[in-house]
Amino acid sequence: MQAVVFDAYGTLFDVSSMTSLCLDMFPEQGRSLAELWRTKQLEYTWLRSLMGQYENFWHESESALLAACAALQLPCEPQTRSRLVGAYLHLPPYPDVEPALQALAPYPLAVLSNASPGMLEIGIRNAGLRGRFAHLISVDEARIYKPSPRAYRLAVEKLRVDPPAVAYVSANAWDIAGAKAFGFWSCWVNRAKAPGEELGLAADAVIPHLGKLVSLVSR
Amino acid sequence: MQAVVFDAYGTLFDVSSMTSLCLDMFPEQGRSLAELWRTKQLEYTWLRSLMGQYENFWHESESALLAACAALQLPCEPQTRSRLVGAYLHLPPYPDVEPALQALAPYPLAVLSNASPGMLEIGIRNAGLRGRFAHLISVDEARIYKPSPRAYRLAVEKLRVDPPAVAYVSANAWDIAGAKAFGFWSCWVNRAKAPGEELGLAADAVIPHLGKLVSLVSR
Repeated sequence: MQAVVFDAYGTLFDVSSMTSLCLDMFPEQGRSLAELWRTKQLEYTWLRSLMGQYENFWHESESALLAACAALQLPCEPQTRSRLVGAYLHLPPYPDVEPALQALAPYPLAVLSNASPGMLEIGIRNAGLRGRFAHLISVDEARIYKPSPRAYRLAVEKLRVDPPAVAYVSANAWDIAGAKAFGFWSCWVNRAKAPGEELGLAADAVIPHLGKLVSLVSR
Repeated sequence: MQAVVFDAYGTLFDVSSMTSLCLDMFPEQGRSLAELWRTKQLEYTWLRSLMGQYENFWHESESALLAACAALQLPCEPQTRSRLVGAYLHLPPYPDVEPALQALAPYPLAVLSNASPGMLEIGIRNAGLRGRFAHLISVDEARIYKPSPRAYRLAVEKLRVDPPAVAYVSANAWDIAGAKAFGFWSCWVNRAKAPGEELGLAADAVIPHLGKLVSLVSR
């Protein structure tokens, strides 16, 4: 392996605080809202990518929140939207992130995220991880979301390595399928012990937390 | 308008019997299974389209069912799969379909569906609608799913009309967004009075059932 590329949300950033915040704001339907919002957020990235109608991730997140609130018949004032979408800037890293990044410091490390460049930059800085990465790459540069190969190609261009020499690490099984289809060596961080996707593109390795990544990459 | 193109599942075919069948087979979690299966079925079409890894809709439906059963910890034997996916061949049309197609008979009518060619042909025949359509168009020919413009373009090629002269009719709000992005005049059949999607591409018309379509098209 010549480089390691990480997905951000759910992989480096612990997104469970989004659910807590939704529950703070909507005690009864907060959990349903958090789930439906995340589902719609991803679906909108895929739909807009397929339609050739890219909008950045902040915009998608707001649109998906509006749609999720409408489906659950919850109010969605501008200040509700700002507070909920703004929480993406202040997500804590999982506890296994910092030690793993430290151990992987000899490798060029990058983040490849659906997040818009500003969201990614601020989120990584707020999580105290800014010094760890050689590149923070937003799909915004390609104006298409993962799992389009054009999104993964950005990492190869920045790092100047061939896809099979890149260890791509994500907690999202669909993202692992996309990375695998592109040609990366792919490692699924399955902290929640979730069942995989049935997309015919299995991960090259599955690990329960990032502590297990170091030995795999340096093998 | 010079032609009318219909989506199939949920638009012509009443898919609520899929939920009943899931409930027959899994009394406790049938409703959750039907919902998750449909969600994953669509998501897989979008993911595979973006990855450039097309598989036909029968295959996607089986894969999505496997994943949905795994997520809900339900057994998914081959005969369960055949029975559930096979039910797509025997869906009844909504009661408003036949009279609307009859009234629209002076126009060239087509179906444009994600379904594989065999599924579409058999489903339309079993619903007693075979004689109503000049073209049964499966996205399989383009090897990419809706809402890619390449899928909608198939209808224009078969019908030999410009996109704005096509009335595109679907019960799926995301499909309406795709049709609108492609350039069709789009009509959302919102039988369930659902909130729309927030994709910035609203329908040109929204109707509660297909009975309202005839006057709009011939206006």
